[in-house]
Amino acid sequence: MKSINVAVVGFGNVGRAFVKTLALKRKTLSEKYGININVVAIADSKGMVIKPSGLDDYEMLKLCEVPKSGIHMFGSYAKQGVDIAEIYDKAAPNIHVELTPANYATGEPGYTNIVFALKRGAHVVTANKAPLVLYYREIVEEARIRRLMIKFRATVMGGTPFLEMLSSMKSHDIEKVEGILNATTNYILTEMHENLLDFEQALRKAQALGIAEADPSLDIEGFDAAAKLVIISYVIGKPINISSIYRESVAQISLKDVLDAVKQGHVIKYVAALDAQKMVASVKIEKVPRDNVFAQINGTLNGVRIKSDATELFFIGRGGGRIETAHTVLDDVIEVALRGSA
Amino acid sequence: MKSINVAVVGFGNVGRAFVKTLALKRKTLSEKYGININVVAIADSKGMVIKPSGLDDYEMLKLCEVPKSGIHMFGSYAKQGVDIAEIYDKAAPNIHVELTPANYATGEPGYTNIVFALKRGAHVVTANKAPLVLYYREIVEEARIRRLMIKFRATVMGGTPFLEMLSSMKSHDIEKVEGILNATTNYILTEMHENLLDFEQALRKAQALGIAEADPSLDIEGFDAAAKLVIISYVIGKPINISSIYRESVAQISLKDVLDAVKQGHVIKYVAALDAQKMVASVKIEKVPRDNVFAQINGTLNGVRIKSDATELFFIGRGGGRIETAHTVLDDVIEVALRGSA
Repeated sequence: MKSINVAVVGFGNVGRAFVKTLALKRKTLSEKYGININVVAIADSKGMVIKPSGLDDYEMLKLCEVPKSGIHMFGSYAKQGVDIAEIYDKAAPNIHVELTPANYATGEPGYTNIVFALKRGAHVVTANKAPLVLYYREIVEEARIRRLMIKFRATVMGGTPFLEMLSSMKSHDIEKVEGILNATTNYILTEMHENLLDFEQALRKAQALGIAEADPSLDIEGFDAAAKLVIISYVIGKPINISSIYRESVAQISLKDVLDAVKQGHVIKYVAALDAQKMVASVKIEKVPRDNVFAQINGTLNGVRIKSDATELFFIGRGGGRIETAHTVLDDVIEVALRGSA
Repeated sequence: MKSINVAVVGFGNVGRAFVKTLALKRKTLSEKYGININVVAIADSKGMVIKPSGLDDYEMLKLCEVPKSGIHMFGSYAKQGVDIAEIYDKAAPNIHVELTPANYATGEPGYTNIVFALKRGAHVVTANKAPLVLYYREIVEEARIRRLMIKFRATVMGGTPFLEMLSSMKSHDIEKVEGILNATTNYILTEMHENLLDFEQALRKAQALGIAEADPSLDIEGFDAAAKLVIISYVIGKPINISSIYRESVAQISLKDVLDAVKQGHVIKYVAALDAQKMVASVKIEKVPRDNVFAQINGTLNGVRIKSDATELFFIGRGGGRIETAHTVLDDVIEVALRGSA
């Protein structure tokens, strides 16, 4: 039985779902794959829990019930303040799971944490897009020279193994990747079409359900989808810069636009597209014929079309969702545990 | 630069498309991934070509133009008769690419070739379903004890990385996999719906286009789709036996059945399903509502739905096609070359 020590940095919705899923499934996983996954440290924005021998299932489940940014109050293994170095000094994790929120201005704290983890010899799994969008080359190079793995399949279509699939198509020349990559705006557009809400009403409904954030600008201005296109472009080896991606705001769509489109047999979708031959990318409002596959991708579903020199395929699944994304992060952790040398 | 020596055993449509694709792409692949893939031997049913230093691009392209079962006539490296041991004695391939046709009665010659290759220390990539359907455990165990890789993503939805994606979902409890897994019968049904052909006419058209074989029984009796369900069941760790799979023949569908279904807003599809909770599997004729995703999968497209305890996703792409399948085989070869220790 191979034992793997994991540090979880960032303990919001996905972090908690990850720790909870692991607590519930790790017995099954150890039977199925012969690996024992121990959580030796968790950090949130204000504190840390460090237990070098590994938290037990009960402790993991209890931690998931602590108020947000409150793990420093969790009994004897907890302390106030975050010091990633202390985690590595005391618990020497093999895998660093970086689940801090995305900050596209700086990439922090994700970027510093990821580089620190690699320098200390840990493989890295992350769901945070910002460090990759801003510093993909630096991170991948840091991992490469140390023969460590950096995995990030939860960053695009987080509830599915889309990126894993795309990166496995190594003999293909990927010509185009396009689709509906942002669940929040797709939910808003679906509400506008199905329940005839205007944009503001649909946005408020999405916020009330926790689908949209209090500040929804990253989603509705197309920045989140553009960030995903950047990561896709690196995965297929044809990198583009986020500043070069043309973006339209979904907020400009009125209920009248929707009704006009429907009358013509169309639906309005918010489509992210990377043309890897012309090396251009965009996040645009598009009218899609009602019998097109994209027209059927509604609510919080995501869907994507991959066109290569040899084939074409469609992939439809959950873009996010805390439980779905937690499984995707865990899939990366399991793959590293099975393949990694640490 | 890492050099990898490949033996290709089986030189029909997929074998030729594989060798041709490799000849055209290996320069790009070596630049992109730092691996040099040499073809050191090719065998068809009647002869072999062995060149331990590796065939050059021109030789590879010329070989693809030799008549079927005729490579023994190919100049100085060729000889009559097939002796896999001689390939290993003379050229010591690192990767064995097994592309012989499927024989579900015996699994041969694939099974013997695969085990021989593993015993001689070669990783194995195959597109031949029969050895896996009959001897999955034996083959995987033989590879495991020798720390070799056995890859077979071209066996299900051959033109896509479906199996790779499914096997990467390691944290998921896969509850159901269902879909349209046989391109030939889906093409026939699409012709019946769109061009109002009866079954025999549609079958003859498929045969004339090379989509159906002269003896189409493996496809139309559901055996091919059932074989794919068996491989899927092993990949998700819940093996079922092919003899336990309930199969209906697609040949029993009349044009009247199709017209009746269409009048009710349905289409008739040939659906393969594995229920991994009840551990039952079937290949059945089903009426599918016209707005269902499966109803939109027409012609030689394949489509599949994966339902796990955490998510649900759809995947649509080419089931076969020689070029598409050749790329899928090559993706496996590249993955082995990048990861394998040999």
